[in-house]
Amino acid sequence: MKILPKLERKLRRLRKKVTRSPLTRKLDLFHESARKKAFQESCETYKSQIEKEYEVRNTLPKLNRSNKEAFLSDGTFHQAVGRVLLVAEFFAMMPVKGVTAKHPSNLSFSWRNIRTCFSVLFIASSFTNFGLSLYKVLNNPISFNSIKPIIFRGSVLLVLIVSLNLARRWPQLMMYWHTVEQDLPQYQTQMGRWKLGHTIAMVMLVGMMLSVAEHILSMISAINYASFCNRTADPIQNYFLRTNDEIFFVASYSTPLAIWGKFQNVYSTFIWNYMDMFVMIVSIGLAAKFRQLNDDLRNFKGMNMAPAYWSERRIQYRNICILCDKMDDAISLITMVSFSNNLYFICVQLLRSLNTMPSVAHAVYFYFSLIFLIGRTLAVSLYSANVHDESRLTLRHLRCVPKESWCPEVKRFTEEVISDEVALTGMKFFHLTRKLVLSVAGTIVTYELVLIQFHEDNDLWDCEQSYYS
Amino acid sequence: MKILPKLERKLRRLRKKVTRSPLTRKLDLFHESARKKAFQESCETYKSQIEKEYEVRNTLPKLNRSNKEAFLSDGTFHQAVGRVLLVAEFFAMMPVKGVTAKHPSNLSFSWRNIRTCFSVLFIASSFTNFGLSLYKVLNNPISFNSIKPIIFRGSVLLVLIVSLNLARRWPQLMMYWHTVEQDLPQYQTQMGRWKLGHTIAMVMLVGMMLSVAEHILSMISAINYASFCNRTADPIQNYFLRTNDEIFFVASYSTPLAIWGKFQNVYSTFIWNYMDMFVMIVSIGLAAKFRQLNDDLRNFKGMNMAPAYWSERRIQYRNICILCDKMDDAISLITMVSFSNNLYFICVQLLRSLNTMPSVAHAVYFYFSLIFLIGRTLAVSLYSANVHDESRLTLRHLRCVPKESWCPEVKRFTEEVISDEVALTGMKFFHLTRKLVLSVAGTIVTYELVLIQFHEDNDLWDCEQSYYS
Amino acid sequence: MKILPKLERKLRRLRKKVTRSPLTRKLDLFHESARKKAFQESCETYKSQIEKEYEVRNTLPKLNRSNKEAFLSDGTFHQAVGRVLLVAEFFAMMPVKGVTAKHPSNLSFSWRNIRTCFSVLFIASSFTNFGLSLYKVLNNPISFNSIKPIIFRGSVLLVLIVSLNLARRWPQLMMYWHTVEQDLPQYQTQMGRWKLGHTIAMVMLVGMMLSVAEHILSMISAINYASFCNRTADPIQNYFLRTNDEIFFVASYSTPLAIWGKFQNVYSTFIWNYMDMFVMIVSIGLAAKFRQLNDDLRNFKGMNMAPAYWSERRIQYRNICILCDKMDDAISLITMVSFSNNLYFICVQLLRSLNTMPSVAHAVYFYFSLIFLIGRTLAVSLYSANVHDESRLTLRHLRCVPKESWCPEVKRFTEEVISDEVALTGMKFFHLTRKLVLSVAGTIVTYELVLIQFHEDNDLWDCEQSYYS
Amino acid sequence: MKILPKLERKLRRLRKKVTRSPLTRKLDLFHESARKKAFQESCETYKSQIEKEYEVRNTLPKLNRSNKEAFLSDGTFHQAVGRVLLVAEFFAMMPVKGVTAKHPSNLSFSWRNIRTCFSVLFIASSFTNFGLSLYKVLNNPISFNSIKPIIFRGSVLLVLIVSLNLARRWPQLMMYWHTVEQDLPQYQTQMGRWKLGHTIAMVMLVGMMLSVAEHILSMISAINYASFCNRTADPIQNYFLRTNDEIFFVASYSTPLAIWGKFQNVYSTFIWNYMDMFVMIVSIGLAAKFRQLNDDLRNFKGMNMAPAYWSERRIQYRNICILCDKMDDAISLITMVSFSNNLYFICVQLLRSLNTMPSVAHAVYFYFSLIFLIGRTLAVSLYSANVHDESRLTLRHLRCVPKESWCPEVKRFTEEVISDEVALTGMKFFHLTRKLVLSVAGTIVTYELVLIQFHEDNDLWDCEQSYYS
Repeated sequence: MKILPKLERKLRRLRKKVTRSPLTRKLDLFHESARKKAFQESCETYKSQIEKEYEVRNTLPKLNRSNKEAFLSDGTFHQAVGRVLLVAEFFAMMPVKGVTAKHPSNLSFSWRNIRTCFSVLFIASSFTNFGLSLYKVLNNPISFNSIKPIIFRGSVLLVLIVSLNLARRWPQLMMYWHTVEQDLPQYQTQMGRWKLGHTIAMVMLVGMMLSVAEHILSMISAINYASFCNRTADPIQNYFLRTNDEIFFVASYSTPLAIWGKFQNVYSTFIWNYMDMFVMIVSIGLAAKFRQLNDDLRNFKGMNMAPAYWSERRIQYRNICILCDKMDDAISLITMVSFSNNLYFICVQLLRSLNTMPSVAHAVYFYFSLIFLIGRTLAVSLYSANVHDESRLTLRHLRCVPKESWCPEVKRFTEEVISDEVALTGMKFFHLTRKLVLSVAGTIVTYELVLIQFHEDNDLWDCEQSYYS
Repeated sequence: MKILPKLERKLRRLRKKVTRSPLTRKLDLFHESARKKAFQESCETYKSQIEKEYEVRNTLPKLNRSNKEAFLSDGTFHQAVGRVLLVAEFFAMMPVKGVTAKHPSNLSFSWRNIRTCFSVLFIASSFTNFGLSLYKVLNNPISFNSIKPIIFRGSVLLVLIVSLNLARRWPQLMMYWHTVEQDLPQYQTQMGRWKLGHTIAMVMLVGMMLSVAEHILSMISAINYASFCNRTADPIQNYFLRTNDEIFFVASYSTPLAIWGKFQNVYSTFIWNYMDMFVMIVSIGLAAKFRQLNDDLRNFKGMNMAPAYWSERRIQYRNICILCDKMDDAISLITMVSFSNNLYFICVQLLRSLNTMPSVAHAVYFYFSLIFLIGRTLAVSLYSANVHDESRLTLRHLRCVPKESWCPEVKRFTEEVISDEVALTGMKFFHLTRKLVLSVAGTIVTYELVLIQFHEDNDLWDCEQSYYS
Repeated sequence: MKILPKLERKLRRLRKKVTRSPLTRKLDLFHESARKKAFQESCETYKSQIEKEYEVRNTLPKLNRSNKEAFLSDGTFHQAVGRVLLVAEFFAMMPVKGVTAKHPSNLSFSWRNIRTCFSVLFIASSFTNFGLSLYKVLNNPISFNSIKPIIFRGSVLLVLIVSLNLARRWPQLMMYWHTVEQDLPQYQTQMGRWKLGHTIAMVMLVGMMLSVAEHILSMISAINYASFCNRTADPIQNYFLRTNDEIFFVASYSTPLAIWGKFQNVYSTFIWNYMDMFVMIVSIGLAAKFRQLNDDLRNFKGMNMAPAYWSERRIQYRNICILCDKMDDAISLITMVSFSNNLYFICVQLLRSLNTMPSVAHAVYFYFSLIFLIGRTLAVSLYSANVHDESRLTLRHLRCVPKESWCPEVKRFTEEVISDEVALTGMKFFHLTRKLVLSVAGTIVTYELVLIQFHEDNDLWDCEQSYYS
Repeated sequence: MKILPKLERKLRRLRKKVTRSPLTRKLDLFHESARKKAFQESCETYKSQIEKEYEVRNTLPKLNRSNKEAFLSDGTFHQAVGRVLLVAEFFAMMPVKGVTAKHPSNLSFSWRNIRTCFSVLFIASSFTNFGLSLYKVLNNPISFNSIKPIIFRGSVLLVLIVSLNLARRWPQLMMYWHTVEQDLPQYQTQMGRWKLGHTIAMVMLVGMMLSVAEHILSMISAINYASFCNRTADPIQNYFLRTNDEIFFVASYSTPLAIWGKFQNVYSTFIWNYMDMFVMIVSIGLAAKFRQLNDDLRNFKGMNMAPAYWSERRIQYRNICILCDKMDDAISLITMVSFSNNLYFICVQLLRSLNTMPSVAHAVYFYFSLIFLIGRTLAVSLYSANVHDESRLTLRHLRCVPKESWCPEVKRFTEEVISDEVALTGMKFFHLTRKLVLSVAGTIVTYELVLIQFHEDNDLWDCEQSYYS
């Protein structure tokens, strides 16, 4: 009975030959050979590239940098983000238990946990501080510049509440993330596994360093300023009177209040920086997952793969998209707050930049803080745009699928990649892509141009004004 | 004879096995098992989600809230919108007979109906009032601020005429809506049926409450103002002289005229609010129909469905799209008027906000009215953007169709969802989506920034000025 | 031997039954019946609509309006546009021979034709006039307002040259148009044939009427103004000194020069209006061809058509697209000039609108001309956007193709309609769609708002200024 | 055994006939004949077009223009760009060896080469110059206008560094380009081969000529100005003191320094112009490759081609896309610098244009330089937008593939052309398309309008100001 299929195949071949004219057949042969040559050539350049990458991959990182850690990392987002969340917990955010545990199933949230209590307490304290700021601002004429303290403290408060809510959903989110990660094609080298955690740690470290540097510079400048506008004889008291004017607008000076104000300021500054970094870190994680998939696709680029391979990759791609969506739902309010905050502060700072600085300390602090602000905004924008870029990159590999293995599954995969817009969003109002960065930059530049053109010195640096950021 | 097909299937299987190399086969098996695992896992999280939702669904709503009504509702738009239209009829709009009837076939429009006569009469009255406003404005220097009464009364008049025309087409529209609704997959619970009517009633109620509150505040502020700019000894006369200055610009004071003016003002204010609410309510209705379809798709998500299932869903989706189109044709002029009106009024109010308020009553009224205006605009925008969002959501379910049941019908369905832009429009000039909301907000903020930067106090609050919004 | 295919079909049916589970089969039946009901219902509403349309179609147009003409028209663009081109030829544009001939093959262009000579002569005359305007403007301080005469005369000159070039290509374009038209599905009624020519004639008539009305008003206002700024005792001389100041800036007053100037003004004004109308008329023609195709598709909507039907329609659609492209290549420079001209003039007029008018005659002329300008711009925009709208409408009919007749040809047709952006363009820089209209309107409003906010009376109406538009 | 396939084919035909009703068959025949007629007609117009083109092709170019060169050219980008790079090398850019060699394999980069050393040396010299400019600017009040020297020198320095890096990758890029070119369908005539090189040479020549003319005008104007603001008795010294004020701000006048400054100025000006021309030339090259492919597709337009033909063309298209991507990666920083530079300089020049010119020499220089700047910007924009336009043109040919040869490969090709956005980018922030040109022009016009409206003479032409560009 086995002859039958063989026979049928033979017949099919014959039939094909008959339906085609001899000229077409010759043309076909000619085209085929030309195509093969082209393919071979592009294959060779590709092979050389792969080999080069392989070399890079195998040259181990500088061995003096925590080698052990590199070999223990398993490349999961949960593990990579652990220490970042630990720092956040110290600053009263994201009160989840088990962030440094090996497996996301150890994560838990409880209202009775000490972390949660601290977080809730700090929210109450921030709320009081926000109320005081609001009271002071409303008792003075309102302008674009004068509402700065409300915007600052208000957004910190909002982020605190959102992060508390996020903490409740975190264990579940991480479990889903873990499921998706387990299903993805495995990293080929230990380097690959190590890289995600390393990048996140580096971003956190650099961000924190710069944030601390800015805070110290702000203190120096404030001390300098306080002595210039000295209201009392005590320089420390002057400093606190100035940096916490919203407290001493209603109460007279007392050391505990000053300490509370200072504590509030330090924590607020951290949280204000942390929200940007958090968006960055989630973006890095999501982009890394897309890259993991793309790396696998690149390894098999131009080869004849079975439909099941493509089907599997498509489902994996879909899973990362769903993950992206879930994460976006969870953090899009933070993204929105972070973006509008940055835009507002850049505009205010640029407005101030036109005025003459009262002292060198101010000038140094001001320009450092402005550059830090712009740099941070750019970093958030570009890192989050990267999620979109990586998700589109898949298309490039799908374009090179050879004719022979072009099947409905590849077609479906391609169409899904083309038509989906995978990106973090600001509450679905805008997608974080490189085009957005350009349009935001364009808006700022236009605004600055108009400002410069019609500028009169407004003397925004006066002693009466609210100081802190 | 039954052996033959069986035999053929066997042969096919054999042939497949032969054409594939053993390695490919092994890889396939491996991939298949991995894919199955991934699918199973995602299936489990999905199942738990469904179960959770099921629980929520079965926990009945608070029983003290008109339970009976909930169990009588059949979830049609006609029924849900009935009382809303009844209120409108009281305010001389939408003179359709039978709005509270069970079935849309009882709807009818007749020029001889008492409702229609009242409506036509009120249009004539409004036209007179509009003429008087126009006359007053043209006899004073024209500015962005001074044309407010014309814009207000003009758009009210336009909406009245459009709504009269809409009333003529309403019975036919509702019949089409009914046909589409009957064909849709049925609600699974009584809760689902009850929800649409409930949401519409709540939106109407809250909107009316806030509108009444604003009108009362405006009266208090006007009385306050009238006594400050008192032209005569009589405070009531002062009030009417002020709020209906367009009438007493041509005629001397008389009580019937004052009452007519007051009546006109109250009705105009209601209609001005109602047009926004009407757009919202239609949007809620359309979005609910898409949701009904999506709910069904979600229930069968990831399962192997027959092509006929997909074909049916595609035709239902198409029907809702056509319904959307028909409704948009009918109300897009109202949408346009509502949007441009809101934009204009926000700009005018923001311009005014820079000036100092003459009294506390004014300040309270002004900020309440500004926040109400912005809130209402946002609500209209977001509710109508929701139609677009819901129509795109279908795609998410289609992405999860398993490989086995991927057929030409699903493909066609997917492609239609991708390429159609289903949304309410402002006369086809713009689609109501979330991106529009952002760009409108951006425009307002930019305008406000320019205003603030170059502001000089224009003293827009003077006694000579036309008062009524 | 005939048993074999029959047998095979039977087998196939059996095979299908076997592969499906009984449940699926039942579900299928259920779905199928539901789908059929839905389809039937939507079919009925559709049929009633068709019948209604049919009635409208058969009620003949008012019989007192050149009945004979209606029955002689064959619905071709060549015939419809004939008289429009005849008028243009009278005003020294489009010197093509045979524009009123029955068949486009009678069209010809020759450099030796009297029309061409007149056209070339007028171009030379316009060039001289443009040179004089340029000379006068460069000898005065340049501002946004003062360059008006150069823009006006420069664009008229440009359009003249482009139209001469277009005339050379016109016979070939019309032949192509004719070929496409012949291939299209025929009109069903004589009304359909008559409509295109009628619409074009109406647009031309209304445009010309308004243009003449505006010119007469401008003359009255200029006479009024000239007597106010009288330089000499002769009122006629005053008028010409004012309206042709660019001539009498270099030469002393003489009657022949004044007559030449007047002639130049009248002709320039006509051409300035004609370019807008020409864009409108071509748009109407193109949109009508798409509508002709769409009407045929609507007649067969929801029916099971053979693949050949779809293939034919697709090729017809493609042909109209190519026609659109060819026409756009030919007239896109005129479109560009028309659009930028209108934008510039609207901005200038709005700038002027803020100043107080010197007399009532001026005010009447000014507001009439402003409204005419805005109306004309809107008309051009909307008529040309209509080409795009009609080309997209085809999609709506393709969406309703029943499952049974869904074939690769329909799929290809659908995909082509989705991905092509068929529209007239301004030199490929922008596509003329409704979204463009909105963004242009937005730009003008923003500009006007900024102007109003920072306005100081510039006294743009002085006697020294160049007058003629 | 040969009967079987024949038999089966017969059966299939029969089956088809049976499944179709007689009416459908008749309709089919009717449609088919109509379609054939339409096709034939469009074919004829097409043939006549091809023939016309053929004639043009065979009329040899003017024979007095380096005929030999035309017949030696092989149409590769490497050969066409050779002399352009030679000129660049003379100006210390792109230090690659073997640019004029026949084959790209002769290209090489070495750090020890004399060209590289010269380039590195010049970078060091430019860096010093940049430092001096920065020092001078920071010691004066900063404004939009005063930072011009930093922007100018900074971007020149950046381009120098990027071009050094590009030189390292150039041999590899050219090899890839060569591979792609070899695989493309061959040019049909020697004219085709000659055209690319000719266009590039012309663009370079015209660009250089205008650049030299501008530099000479700038020198005349500077000499004129220097004598007006004469600080010393020596006119040459005055000239150098003025044009190299950043050097003589820190050092006293000496002839070697003046010569160094002059040398730096000449070279910087060249490089500033060259970066625009380089972007243009690469764009011309890429667009030419797409055109080569499109020409081949047009030659076979409407014919029935084998699937292998389409497969081959698709891979070729893909290869050019990848080439585009590689080139964009390599030069996108240059593109970005070039674009932002041009935008900034146009804005600054327009700002200056509002002031009165100190002398006729200045006016001539200023307007020449402004027009040159705008023209150059437009040229860069349009040439680079051309890459995108040519890549989309492929679609037009694919639309005309007849029904019979419509196969999965054509479908895949079409879908890839539709969904890919092939264009040069500015660091992926924006794609260089015609729409971009419009939006950039719109931005500049808006900025200029705002400037004009609120202009006060700023006296930007004072003796103290930094002069050079």
